[in-house]
Amino acid sequence: MKLYSYFRSSAAYRVRIALNLKGLGYEYEGVHLLREGGQQLKPEYRALNPDGIVPTLVDGADVLTQSLSIIEYLEETHPQPPLLPERPVDRAFVRSVALQVACEIHPLDNLRVLKYLKHEVKTPDDVKDAWYRHWVEAGFESLEKRLARDERVGALTFGDTPTVADLCIVPQVFNARRFGIDLNAYPTITRIADHAGQIDAFARAAPGQQPDAE
Amino acid sequence: MKLYSYFRSSAAYRVRIALNLKGLGYEYEGVHLLREGGQQLKPEYRALNPDGIVPTLVDGADVLTQSLSIIEYLEETHPQPPLLPERPVDRAFVRSVALQVACEIHPLDNLRVLKYLKHEVKTPDDVKDAWYRHWVEAGFESLEKRLARDERVGALTFGDTPTVADLCIVPQVFNARRFGIDLNAYPTITRIADHAGQIDAFARAAPGQQPDAE
Repeated sequence: MKLYSYFRSSAAYRVRIALNLKGLGYEYEGVHLLREGGQQLKPEYRALNPDGIVPTLVDGADVLTQSLSIIEYLEETHPQPPLLPERPVDRAFVRSVALQVACEIHPLDNLRVLKYLKHEVKTPDDVKDAWYRHWVEAGFESLEKRLARDERVGALTFGDTPTVADLCIVPQVFNARRFGIDLNAYPTITRIADHAGQIDAFARAAPGQQPDAE
Repeated sequence: MKLYSYFRSSAAYRVRIALNLKGLGYEYEGVHLLREGGQQLKPEYRALNPDGIVPTLVDGADVLTQSLSIIEYLEETHPQPPLLPERPVDRAFVRSVALQVACEIHPLDNLRVLKYLKHEVKTPDDVKDAWYRHWVEAGFESLEKRLARDERVGALTFGDTPTVADLCIVPQVFNARRFGIDLNAYPTITRIADHAGQIDAFARAAPGQQPDAE
């Protein structure tokens, strides 16, 4: 398999963790989101992934896009170890945490949105920074409430074994810290992220460990 | 089952279609996103769903959130008729189309984001309207390319039977039309949405057919 990735991309980071947890080797192909006006927007890459975003996973003749869809595919084709619990209601809980990060926080704070705010909306830097902080804080505030009261939460989101929820939480916490956001109000989220970060599959997927890290 | 919904919510619309396709009856509970400063932000509703967004599905003692997680839950607990194909690579294709709408378009154009732009970023109305249009057009442009070249596309996204991809496309096209966006550049997307719209389960889920429609 070949993964088109950018070291700092949250969505690519999720897939790298999944591949590592499943014990799947892959070829790493860096796509630099800032160089040459964005390598993800070049015709060569868009021929593969018309969205012009990372990650893309190529598995034989198949081209897979959208991180959560790729992770479900890996779960179905390489079931061990599972990244989802057994019971449908628990799977729904885990998926809802993943989607809360992937649909409510990440889409608002990713690079192309911040660029649009700056260049098209002409948003001043301080207002753009407040925008970034707002969506992390709004999302983490409700996620913290959900996790703090749910008995299924253990050292990780669902007990002590990694699930797709942790795969989304870790990159989002990494990004929030990189941006300097105060995370003291989210002790459950940061505890989960820090615990997961110690696990080898997560540690090897971290941005600083990638071939294209700067 | 009880569905907390708002007639115009895209995410609630997806779940209504799924419930109808599965032939599942449910109690409809309207949550008005504009009245009383937003009924979804009231403590009573947030006790159920801390995110303060719709939909929420209550199934016995279980509270389920995030539309795509709810739909996967319905798929697992009521497998017939299936809303996902059989082969993992086809499931990944269908899920990636659903996620492209749910992660790349919808999160940027929903009500709370437009409100934040208006009140916090102080974005003029014409710039806010251009923002809305931009994310629909950027998302539809690449989705159209993917669908137009994929041999799996039939009358609907995957052949002729409804999948979770169609459940996401139909509400997004409905919203885009309501906003007056010119969709002539996306013939495959609109063809799929129009075909799906004729199917009874989709037609009954339409905003205008809901008890809280205005």
